[in-house]
Amino acid sequence: MHVIAHLRSPYVEKFGVPRQGNLVPHLRAQIVFTPEFRHREALRGLDCFSHLWIIWNFHLNGEQWSPTVRPPRLGGNTRMGVFATRSPFRPNGLGLSVLKIESIELDSPEGPIIEVSGADMVDGTPIYDIKPYIPYADSIEDAQGGFSQSGQCQPLSMRFDEGVILPASIDEDWLAALAETLAQDPRPAYQDDPNRVYHLMLRPYELSFRVEAGVAIILELGTIR
Amino acid sequence: MHVIAHLRSPYVEKFGVPRQGNLVPHLRAQIVFTPEFRHREALRGLDCFSHLWIIWNFHLNGEQWSPTVRPPRLGGNTRMGVFATRSPFRPNGLGLSVLKIESIELDSPEGPIIEVSGADMVDGTPIYDIKPYIPYADSIEDAQGGFSQSGQCQPLSMRFDEGVILPASIDEDWLAALAETLAQDPRPAYQDDPNRVYHLMLRPYELSFRVEAGVAIILELGTIR
Repeated sequence: MHVIAHLRSPYVEKFGVPRQGNLVPHLRAQIVFTPEFRHREALRGLDCFSHLWIIWNFHLNGEQWSPTVRPPRLGGNTRMGVFATRSPFRPNGLGLSVLKIESIELDSPEGPIIEVSGADMVDGTPIYDIKPYIPYADSIEDAQGGFSQSGQCQPLSMRFDEGVILPASIDEDWLAALAETLAQDPRPAYQDDPNRVYHLMLRPYELSFRVEAGVAIILELGTIR
Repeated sequence: MHVIAHLRSPYVEKFGVPRQGNLVPHLRAQIVFTPEFRHREALRGLDCFSHLWIIWNFHLNGEQWSPTVRPPRLGGNTRMGVFATRSPFRPNGLGLSVLKIESIELDSPEGPIIEVSGADMVDGTPIYDIKPYIPYADSIEDAQGGFSQSGQCQPLSMRFDEGVILPASIDEDWLAALAETLAQDPRPAYQDDPNRVYHLMLRPYELSFRVEAGVAIILELGTIR
């Protein structure tokens, strides 16, 4: 892989760098090409675009990667798959960010320089590619995405299976506590088998449930002996 | 760079492959991981997202790259800078595409498989990274981008500089032809110096103009002798 450019950014260290691009829109940075790639012609037409993509290298994170990571946005306790995050600890250490093009200087003493805003990388970040942001292909307005604090897409909802008989003495507060407990998805690891049955004790009752399509289905309910 | 997966796609050859993702939304393809990267845990939470990015390799294009390319969408005659296009003929040969997640199978005989739609790559395309499409960061609804057929963002408009005196005999049709000629931007190469003056002969007149901010400013006008 050739480093075609470096980002010149005010962020000297990782501390304070935004977790995604465009969160600090006032921050200016510069894309400065390496000598081999200083071709003003290679930017012809880039001024027709308002934004660009850069594919870059998380160069401060070395070669380490892990199948699961703990996204800071989830409090640092919830493990998610690395391919479900933009974490640096990924195979090949590639970053992807969209930046706003503020101006393009073609003939600086250092060759062409692209002034950008919205950068989320530290100073000196190596850049492997620059591509225009093409709205009709790249902007998907109805895309869905993101986790809840528990790492689920949505909190689990709850329902009782048809055969379950609720004790007449059951407490509304207990039912609310059960709903809140299940909403956080108490399953110990990522297990999406809808047939797997879990056992939960919540005084004064115990119950079994399975989870299918975001719903915890309570299969049995009884008093703890 | 490690190849973490390959795309299994119905496109056996480059011919017919769409130029961007999501242009053929009915086309299904599969992301099949290489043995070293078959970790079901690495996908935990990806089902929270509707779309994903893949960074992939234009493996059929070898190592060649060129500072300028001729995008097919511009008729193949207009040269644009490679960094203003998504052309394969780029340093490092990296492709970037957004795909819709149709389903995720965690335990196939070949490990986890992601079924996607909207793919714009040939069968066997090597994949370097998979990232979730995060709408709040990646979808920029007001982004601007694209060329006109002439390679300009917009056709050039035209005005006469203050000191220019139009001959009383000037023809409306001639003025319209001049406007159309300038709209196509007759400048021979990418030259964005607003002070550079060009000479144009369009019978029965000749004129000089410069171009600033998408406007051709006519500086002098006279009859061809």
